[in-house]
Amino acid sequence: MRIADRINRLGTETAFAVSGEANAFAAQGHKVYPFHLGDINLPTPQTVVDGAEKAIADGKTGYCPNAGIPQLREAIAADVAASHHTDYTMENVVIQPGGKPTIGKFILALMNPGDEVLYPNPGYPIYESQIEFNGGVAVPYGYTEGGDNFLLDFDSIERGITDRTRLLILNDLQNPMGAECLLSEHERLAELVREHDLYVLADEAYFDMRYSGTSTSFVEQPGMAERTVVLYTFSKKFAMTGWRLGASIGPKAIVDVIAKINVNHESCSNHFIQYGALAGLQGDQTEVRAILTELEARRNATVGGLNAIEGVSSFHPNATFYLFPNVTKLMAAKGTDSYEEFRRAALHATGVSFTTRLHFGRAIPGEKERYIRLAYSGIGVDDIQEALEKLKDWAEN
Amino acid sequence: MRIADRINRLGTETAFAVSGEANAFAAQGHKVYPFHLGDINLPTPQTVVDGAEKAIADGKTGYCPNAGIPQLREAIAADVAASHHTDYTMENVVIQPGGKPTIGKFILALMNPGDEVLYPNPGYPIYESQIEFNGGVAVPYGYTEGGDNFLLDFDSIERGITDRTRLLILNDLQNPMGAECLLSEHERLAELVREHDLYVLADEAYFDMRYSGTSTSFVEQPGMAERTVVLYTFSKKFAMTGWRLGASIGPKAIVDVIAKINVNHESCSNHFIQYGALAGLQGDQTEVRAILTELEARRNATVGGLNAIEGVSSFHPNATFYLFPNVTKLMAAKGTDSYEEFRRAALHATGVSFTTRLHFGRAIPGEKERYIRLAYSGIGVDDIQEALEKLKDWAEN
Repeated sequence: MRIADRINRLGTETAFAVSGEANAFAAQGHKVYPFHLGDINLPTPQTVVDGAEKAIADGKTGYCPNAGIPQLREAIAADVAASHHTDYTMENVVIQPGGKPTIGKFILALMNPGDEVLYPNPGYPIYESQIEFNGGVAVPYGYTEGGDNFLLDFDSIERGITDRTRLLILNDLQNPMGAECLLSEHERLAELVREHDLYVLADEAYFDMRYSGTSTSFVEQPGMAERTVVLYTFSKKFAMTGWRLGASIGPKAIVDVIAKINVNHESCSNHFIQYGALAGLQGDQTEVRAILTELEARRNATVGGLNAIEGVSSFHPNATFYLFPNVTKLMAAKGTDSYEEFRRAALHATGVSFTTRLHFGRAIPGEKERYIRLAYSGIGVDDIQEALEKLKDWAEN
Repeated sequence: MRIADRINRLGTETAFAVSGEANAFAAQGHKVYPFHLGDINLPTPQTVVDGAEKAIADGKTGYCPNAGIPQLREAIAADVAASHHTDYTMENVVIQPGGKPTIGKFILALMNPGDEVLYPNPGYPIYESQIEFNGGVAVPYGYTEGGDNFLLDFDSIERGITDRTRLLILNDLQNPMGAECLLSEHERLAELVREHDLYVLADEAYFDMRYSGTSTSFVEQPGMAERTVVLYTFSKKFAMTGWRLGASIGPKAIVDVIAKINVNHESCSNHFIQYGALAGLQGDQTEVRAILTELEARRNATVGGLNAIEGVSSFHPNATFYLFPNVTKLMAAKGTDSYEEFRRAALHATGVSFTTRLHFGRAIPGEKERYIRLAYSGIGVDDIQEALEKLKDWAEN
């Protein structure tokens, strides 16, 4: 078979292999505690379901505009303009079949082959894959442990910038670390972006997934709305991961290019689901708040359970549904420096299934601390407590 | 704004501009007869709707496998194996958010920059766009008018093949011409494919949209299933254009690559809609047949109405919902050789909105005959008759 050369540069989400192992272990009759995937085991709000089903009944089953239905583009623009203190209108919004499509389309729209792109590592593995697949040079930057949060490692960002750097990817609030940028980090980053004339992808998939405080967008920084594309998704806030609906939000000139890519890639996103999301945005928010209340209880249970384990320490992030505990001491106590060995040993001894730092980009040479990632979006509080007691027993004996 | 160079090579569907003009004319209070877009103004079968809504109620709202749910992959494989006389299994099927995504993913999977790709012209404009966007050389081949059908112009195909030709795109049954390949054309084409070691995209979006006879796939030719990717879609057969669901079907090695592209582009297709399509495939086919019965009546009305006009002649194709009448004499009678002038004159005089040869690829130097395209999927029989009487009045006076 004569596969194109570019496929050699195509990455994947290796976390799916962890799902496979967890499912195989469960199939042998073991109870598995699924902390490995960022899916949500909560129902989509009935407001959204009703809106979509009404649209089907109303005949919204034919094509819709490539950029999405105007009503939804307007509603998203109004929502984001308010939360981001910008003057976005519907011309700044192009609907996508999920959050993820914005990553590839941002790169296709703005990156030439050979351009260098700064991206977070540990980070969502599709950044690295899409940069390299499309002929760019993926330049990682890292994070450091602060007192109660992970912080951008500005040393690695500044070291990574060359005269070939064109784009920067920021994921705030962050997967896998649950990190949230301080305002001072946004300010410092915006300075670098202006100084080096970069364009930015602000992956804000978790912007509305927070339990206290208020999310602040990078685009609030002076001049940044003019050079940033925001990745927006309904997947998390409305528990709609399998519905596939999101948007790219940015300067009209880029949004128009991305809409033209839509014409070529998939014509349009599902028509009636856009009415469902519109109903979700405009309707009563009780169900949406209930999702956050449930996730907050899970966050508390998971953080508490992790920090009760000798050799494990986790921050208590206010947002996302991910935790990135430091397990350096536990791995040393267990006598292994292999992430995969450690992960499999925990799975087979306890049924607790998680991913590790390795599933979120290539390890950076010299990394000394060891981390695993737990997603608490797909597992209830009782199972979380049971899981972490088992993990503690295994860890401490 | 610093847009990437590749965007200069990105095409679009210029037919959308015709929609815009038709809508603007309608907004001035004129009645418009929409023959310009291949959308379907018929409801999706209730079997499909019920299947999808049951899946929502059953919680199929989270992510599903990147390649699609196994049950639907199996059902499509069984359906296509039977109609195509192949031994496809679910490993040969990867679900897509529509028919269109298969075009770009086939090219990404199999075409290197600089490779030459033969594609039909007149043809669906996204072929040309995706080939050039991804750095290939788009080499058009044409059609000739036979007695009652358009035939592949093998002269242009053979002339187009060089030692850099790698891929061939076949659209049978064809948009915009309504053309259907003879078995002898499949045989001759398969010989060329073997001789020049090509891989093939068989765009079969209209395979099940036929009013008499039986569709025969190019993959039935010896050795062709091993080097062909079939574009399969639910858009037409189940009147699901706005739902966005289809599949790529082909050799496992290519299907696996396309599934990996899915991981990078959009994670997966909508989860619960896959159950809707499954219900549609496995349920009672009465509603599906009713769609074809209605379209057949429209085909008859449109062909009859066109052939009643002096200077216009149309074939009577058994499949697709497109007609590609020869209007050379009428354009001469109207004193214009400009497609756009002719199209706009007809729209403004009669409200009849259609696309022309120009919306389906760049005109090939030396073309003498003139054609327009009418889609009858979005307009009922009464309006078709009214429209073509008005067009006749305008044409003959």
